[in-house]
Amino acid sequence: MLQESSVDSSGSRFAPLVVLELASDTKEEAIAWLLSRIRDRQQNGGDGDGFLSMAECQYVIKHELDTLRAKEETNVPGYSHAKLYPGKSIIRRLLSKRILIQMFPLHENEELKRLSFSWYKKVKVSLQPLDDIRHYYGEGQALYFGFLEYFTFALVPMALIGVPYYLFDWEDYDKYVVFAVFNLIWCTVILELWKRRSASLAYYWGTLCRKKAFEEPRPGFHGVLGHNPVTGRAEPIYPTSKRHLRVYLVSLPFVLLCLYLSLYIMMIYFQMEGWALSIYDENPTFWTHILLFIPSIIYAVVIEAMNLIYRYAAEFLTEWENHRLESSYQNHLVLKVLVFNFFNCFASLFYIAFVMQDMELLRQSLATLLITSQILNQFMEAFLPYWLQRRRNKKMIRKIQKRRLYEEKELPLVEQVRLEADMSTYLGTFDDYLELFLLFGYVSLFSCVFPLAAVLVVLNNITEVYSDAFKMCRVFKRPFADPAANIGVWQLAFEAMSVIAVVTNCALIGMSPQVRSYFPESETQLILCTVAAEHVLLGFKFILTFLIQDVPKHIQDKLARLEFESLEALKKKVKSDSALTFFTLLPLSKLLPVL
Amino acid sequence: MLQESSVDSSGSRFAPLVVLELASDTKEEAIAWLLSRIRDRQQNGGDGDGFLSMAECQYVIKHELDTLRAKEETNVPGYSHAKLYPGKSIIRRLLSKRILIQMFPLHENEELKRLSFSWYKKVKVSLQPLDDIRHYYGEGQALYFGFLEYFTFALVPMALIGVPYYLFDWEDYDKYVVFAVFNLIWCTVILELWKRRSASLAYYWGTLCRKKAFEEPRPGFHGVLGHNPVTGRAEPIYPTSKRHLRVYLVSLPFVLLCLYLSLYIMMIYFQMEGWALSIYDENPTFWTHILLFIPSIIYAVVIEAMNLIYRYAAEFLTEWENHRLESSYQNHLVLKVLVFNFFNCFASLFYIAFVMQDMELLRQSLATLLITSQILNQFMEAFLPYWLQRRRNKKMIRKIQKRRLYEEKELPLVEQVRLEADMSTYLGTFDDYLELFLLFGYVSLFSCVFPLAAVLVVLNNITEVYSDAFKMCRVFKRPFADPAANIGVWQLAFEAMSVIAVVTNCALIGMSPQVRSYFPESETQLILCTVAAEHVLLGFKFILTFLIQDVPKHIQDKLARLEFESLEALKKKVKSDSALTFFTLLPLSKLLPVL
Repeated sequence: MLQESSVDSSGSRFAPLVVLELASDTKEEAIAWLLSRIRDRQQNGGDGDGFLSMAECQYVIKHELDTLRAKEETNVPGYSHAKLYPGKSIIRRLLSKRILIQMFPLHENEELKRLSFSWYKKVKVSLQPLDDIRHYYGEGQALYFGFLEYFTFALVPMALIGVPYYLFDWEDYDKYVVFAVFNLIWCTVILELWKRRSASLAYYWGTLCRKKAFEEPRPGFHGVLGHNPVTGRAEPIYPTSKRHLRVYLVSLPFVLLCLYLSLYIMMIYFQMEGWALSIYDENPTFWTHILLFIPSIIYAVVIEAMNLIYRYAAEFLTEWENHRLESSYQNHLVLKVLVFNFFNCFASLFYIAFVMQDMELLRQSLATLLITSQILNQFMEAFLPYWLQRRRNKKMIRKIQKRRLYEEKELPLVEQVRLEADMSTYLGTFDDYLELFLLFGYVSLFSCVFPLAAVLVVLNNITEVYSDAFKMCRVFKRPFADPAANIGVWQLAFEAMSVIAVVTNCALIGMSPQVRSYFPESETQLILCTVAAEHVLLGFKFILTFLIQDVPKHIQDKLARLEFESLEALKKKVKSDSALTFFTLLPLSKLLPVL
Repeated sequence: MLQESSVDSSGSRFAPLVVLELASDTKEEAIAWLLSRIRDRQQNGGDGDGFLSMAECQYVIKHELDTLRAKEETNVPGYSHAKLYPGKSIIRRLLSKRILIQMFPLHENEELKRLSFSWYKKVKVSLQPLDDIRHYYGEGQALYFGFLEYFTFALVPMALIGVPYYLFDWEDYDKYVVFAVFNLIWCTVILELWKRRSASLAYYWGTLCRKKAFEEPRPGFHGVLGHNPVTGRAEPIYPTSKRHLRVYLVSLPFVLLCLYLSLYIMMIYFQMEGWALSIYDENPTFWTHILLFIPSIIYAVVIEAMNLIYRYAAEFLTEWENHRLESSYQNHLVLKVLVFNFFNCFASLFYIAFVMQDMELLRQSLATLLITSQILNQFMEAFLPYWLQRRRNKKMIRKIQKRRLYEEKELPLVEQVRLEADMSTYLGTFDDYLELFLLFGYVSLFSCVFPLAAVLVVLNNITEVYSDAFKMCRVFKRPFADPAANIGVWQLAFEAMSVIAVVTNCALIGMSPQVRSYFPESETQLILCTVAAEHVLLGFKFILTFLIQDVPKHIQDKLARLEFESLEALKKKVKSDSALTFFTLLPLSKLLPVL
């Protein structure tokens, strides 16, 4: 329901920051009550323009709305089934009862035009405007694009080494040892350096030392009404033991079942592979040679489909586990999805590399998987939503034009809100990071047998920047800003992958004919040496994590200076403040009896 | 120089907390200046009895003295070579020029009597009075004794399983697999549980959330006078690159040389061992059987001597590296000492276990090393200092009694100060933790071949509690309290040892005849299975570290409640405070254009 009277009453164009879309049949009394409650909160309000970035304003408004709490009301006026109790977040109840349909910040067309021009419309190749992205979308988004950019640059040396490897005759598989060693060092160093880069960015954006706010229960969390031991507020309580039962007796077996299913499909793929090979052997023509690639392509599509289906199942299960906090929900979801995706994407490669030990097949399989999944991803992620969006927009604009003909070219505010309310909702950076995680896996685990992998990933990342930028600006509703100091749980995930990469590359090196030729008589000795080298490398990696400081020295100094100055200021305040007698705590009168 | 007139001027016995011993020929003007400067600082002082623990009072006094800074003085009055500059800590300069000889807190005899009675004089077996220890010595000491107690209890299950293993015929070396598996789980779990115990203790003592104060440069730190980038104060500056050169070009080669020397001595030990064995084989009598143990005993004594000498060398080198902060000095020292001690004590055991693969010799060597080093340690640590101290005390008391005969039994304050000034200085918990670290190594690495090790360590720890308590109360000067939230770098050291223990135990299991019999034809497969199992266990250990929360739930809740309440109080203050208009930051007036 759009109250159009409230719009454009004055001559100047009024730019709203956040839009709340209520259900079309919302009762008047509920609206009146909600407005009065918001005005109540607002009464000390003012205008903060210019001081905060737009993204920050929207974040503050969202926070204020989220913490709008019920007082004596026992239900939402007009909705007796929408129960309230003292301290319950009003917005969360409205959302969970589908009275409030959605709440989203509005795009600012002028800003967006400027941003999109400097971001992806310029033909000139340049760095991304991270500060502008942060200003418009908040730190969480900006860190994702920062990481994407960093990851792409980090891949360039790999790609540069990979091309001659591929083009000239370096490609024979006996010689991948050098590349594996390089790989192994690379994946350790870039993650450490990213921590420093991330700390620099977060420092300049002011989120580095940000304390976490108290987390409210998730909107979907339910349970018997009790009291929160920390805040003392009324809140649903759900016993941890019950949640553990759900996690360990339902979710865990389900994940294991999915992994088994994934293994089963992998085996079917190998059967298809063998079948295609036998046809080719019988009748080696151009078409049967093409046929050799078909099983891998089908398998890659099936993998993507399984990942997608599993993703929904994991979300459903994690929702059902009824986590109290959004962070705990996210951790369980990320863990479930990561384990399955890792297994689903890489199990066949590990099987080919270490059980079948067929480097030729490994290379072909890796190339097909990588290219197919990139094409699918770009399609699913950008073109499909864009196409859907375009169709919807055209319909909408036609409808508007039928109703009335505007002389100015700019859409009036009400229409803009209507358009944006229909746009898809951006579901956060989860899928984007997951994609990068899998690409990082392809490169760090097996790129020594397919040195072009890095080149492909660099190309993918460059188009990814443009398609992600495009979809953020044009396809999705503007997301609420999310202040972040780092990439959170993904740092851990990438580091776990880099440990696995060290182990895998050591094993690949140990299996290479070159290294084997040093131990002609004893396989035992070869394995022992490989294992010893792997342990030393893992130890070295661990030490490196300590040696490379997470925060650059000059930022450490600035932080220390800040803390020192606030301490000094506090000391001065305490000294001048007669109410607080800090020095009475010091029993110095007892000092120095014997000098 | 004791100004006796300042003592006992009133009738009641005056109990000083901290004593500063100046050089006997200190010039009057320097004393007058120092006193005036301290009184200057003191002028806002008061009496804080009862509110702070004694240890805290002494810590505060030490902090106040340490941060007594020079203003316009260019040198200590009367000492033109003792340069000062604005901001230089006066006490540090006096100490570095040997004008101030020492600064120590005084024992409080009544308290000490009570403490020592409940600690080590009671015949009844009971837990240590950790709260009293913390009250008297501060949190750092109390955490050490807490850890010692915890470690002893953690060893009890090991000891209980070890005794029947040893007494009955379970001792044949084929059957150590069960014990190794137990060992491997044990060493992971106890360290995780200690973190929780440590957090509980620190919470009740109020140091859990303690922020680190700004660290001043160490007294020994020297360099060209410059400006500290953080505080802006004048301070010596020493380039980091020079320090790195010293660390990597001098210290590192020196440590490697020492390790080589240690290896060389190990080889001599094996030669002696072979020589003793050949004598026994020629003429197997009781005396030649005894002779078999002689090389191990000599080697154990040599190891202890080398550790001691190396300790001094490491201190000298680390001092010479000229670290700015005490914490950085301590880290470099601990690292140097740990690496060498680990190598020196365990290299021979690893050599016997994995190169010679002689489990009989491993067992004998482990037993001899463990028992000899325990006896030596107890002797060096408690009895020797006590004996020296006793001799000194007797002399002193005789001297006093010659001078004048007191009627009251209690020593007058001046004599008490004189006595305590002559006591040895307690050098911190470093050596005590190092000893526990090595004992933990003996138990966790190889105790599966000598199950009695845990029993021996438990016995050692029980006497260690008493001898450490005794030496803290009677042998050493009272140390300054040191507020600590955990055992710091030692947690890391113990965890590194437990990782090594997992690897070692896996290898020992893989080498056992029992496991080998499962792979009769293929050694390669045996090794691959062992390595796979080891990787799974290391991964599991890593996951366990995440699953077991470092801080118990009820303490997490209490901390969250504290933070929540302080935030709420701040909000109220901000609301009532018209100067700070928090809500003007919220542009809520821009909200809700379309409902």
